[in-house]
Amino acid sequence: MAQVNRQWRLAARPVGLVKETDFEWREEPVPVPGEDQFVVHNLYLSLDPTYRGWMNEAGSYVSSVPIGTVMRGAMIGVVEQSRNARFPEGTLVQGMLGWEDYSLSDGKGLSSLPNDPSVPLTAYWGLFSHIGLTAYYGLLDVGKLKSGETLTVSAAAGAVGSLVGQIGKIKGCRVVGIAGSEAKCKWITDELGFDAAINYKTEPVLDSLKKHCPNGIDVHFENVGGEVLDAVLSLINLRARVVVCGLISQYNATGPVPGPRNFWRIVGKRARIEGFIVLDYYDRAAEAMRELRQWYIEGRLRYRVDVVEGLENAPRAFNRLFDGSNQGKLVVKI
Amino acid sequence: MAQVNRQWRLAARPVGLVKETDFEWREEPVPVPGEDQFVVHNLYLSLDPTYRGWMNEAGSYVSSVPIGTVMRGAMIGVVEQSRNARFPEGTLVQGMLGWEDYSLSDGKGLSSLPNDPSVPLTAYWGLFSHIGLTAYYGLLDVGKLKSGETLTVSAAAGAVGSLVGQIGKIKGCRVVGIAGSEAKCKWITDELGFDAAINYKTEPVLDSLKKHCPNGIDVHFENVGGEVLDAVLSLINLRARVVVCGLISQYNATGPVPGPRNFWRIVGKRARIEGFIVLDYYDRAAEAMRELRQWYIEGRLRYRVDVVEGLENAPRAFNRLFDGSNQGKLVVKI
Repeated sequence: MAQVNRQWRLAARPVGLVKETDFEWREEPVPVPGEDQFVVHNLYLSLDPTYRGWMNEAGSYVSSVPIGTVMRGAMIGVVEQSRNARFPEGTLVQGMLGWEDYSLSDGKGLSSLPNDPSVPLTAYWGLFSHIGLTAYYGLLDVGKLKSGETLTVSAAAGAVGSLVGQIGKIKGCRVVGIAGSEAKCKWITDELGFDAAINYKTEPVLDSLKKHCPNGIDVHFENVGGEVLDAVLSLINLRARVVVCGLISQYNATGPVPGPRNFWRIVGKRARIEGFIVLDYYDRAAEAMRELRQWYIEGRLRYRVDVVEGLENAPRAFNRLFDGSNQGKLVVKI
Repeated sequence: MAQVNRQWRLAARPVGLVKETDFEWREEPVPVPGEDQFVVHNLYLSLDPTYRGWMNEAGSYVSSVPIGTVMRGAMIGVVEQSRNARFPEGTLVQGMLGWEDYSLSDGKGLSSLPNDPSVPLTAYWGLFSHIGLTAYYGLLDVGKLKSGETLTVSAAAGAVGSLVGQIGKIKGCRVVGIAGSEAKCKWITDELGFDAAINYKTEPVLDSLKKHCPNGIDVHFENVGGEVLDAVLSLINLRARVVVCGLISQYNATGPVPGPRNFWRIVGKRARIEGFIVLDYYDRAAEAMRELRQWYIEGRLRYRVDVVEGLENAPRAFNRLFDGSNQGKLVVKI
């Protein structure tokens, strides 16, 4: 066991995109477990857009990270020193810990992972995680997708979007993804089986949507906000459902953000726009995981992780979630 | 029976607010009923914001009115000449006819009204009509209002809004209305029993909403769009429902309209924004009418009609729906 616990602490409330100076690099002693506690040696840190809200003073759905404390993050690690009978040494754990080498825990909010050699550890980020739950329940429970419908997905090559589209195909739907590069578009059509992909950086989104959705749009899974949502709203069908999972284009905004144009279309179309947070579905996780695992074993569901090496690169890597340069689920190997 | 059938025909697709020159005044012979037809002597024309969409080339939920034809409108009239056994002379009828003295009909889309002296004819506009159905199903079926919740209503002194607020009180909720004059605010609080009213023309809407909704907003009934909706979205509670009945502030827009700011709030709050059209509830009308009638008899539900005299004034009166000068359900006495 190392002698030093490297940490990223939140040093300032970021304005716009995070800067490395919004964090402080600290080297602290490795914590020592007290009664009922244990130390987790952190292995993989998940980087998710929602963290950006936690860095703000207030306004997110979970409490903000206090200035001066270790930045919060979802982690996979292994128990190294334990005085807690439920988490003996060697246990693989997953849950909310800190951006650091070693985290002290009493087990609250952590779950243990099976030691299953047929499933790579990264699958617990890319698939069997909040990512898989988000795609599964967002699409099926909030979006109520039905066979034969047309589904559109923004950030379609992203961690959640790529699963959403594949589940749409499994459910027998026409699936059109919107992404930000040729490589991403090629991946979702050629390898994931989307019916069509639209590169929003080079194509007129509305015209391309019209072409690829000849029967209109029944369900839209929104991760981004902005222009794509505007175009989608002008093509929705009667009783369409727009699932708002995230509005990533707005997380770094420093001023008021315009709302979706074509919003008025929801009246005539009796459409529903609904926000959701995956936290609300954690108690139903087992049900989704069973089905996701089955599809994964059958080869019908793929995921991709984008691994950044080194805890020291976490703050810089975080911005890749917003500039479109990550390819799949972004994680930091510590 | 008169010799002349005065008519307003649609002469042009209006740009922005309608102008009298968008219509043509015609004096035609009174129609003569053919086999199975009858002539309705029109008595009261309902003026509704949704007509504005019908005047456009396309894009509304029902077909647009062709240029050169009599403007469509909801009407109450009495059958004067009939060759249809289901609608004998003297029958009071209600349904979609034209902006004219006499309309020819085969009965399609018309229903007969009871000859009940205890209910004034105008109640079939202000209460027992699409107005009552809109308020009832919009609030209870789409909005799923529950006892003890806080309800906000825009255009709260309008035909629909005033009923929405009263039903909210009947259901045991805190009700706050937003309206555009002191007289309207006084009417909804002093006579209709709203808990509070906000004059959006003289008060800071967000601050006043904060004051009058100390527990946040659970259901918002939207008739207007724009600034009020922006403010409401910043105060919604977890799992709030925003019922979008209309966006009257936008019907005369000649360019793109900004969407609701604070739209992002629906994600963290897992809120739902849903559009609806009363047409979808016509097959359940009897159920709502029974309850509305009961509340009316018990004196718990009031309505107000704003009667404009003379068919010739219909086009000018129509704009009163948009400048806030009407007080209650706007109808034209022909």
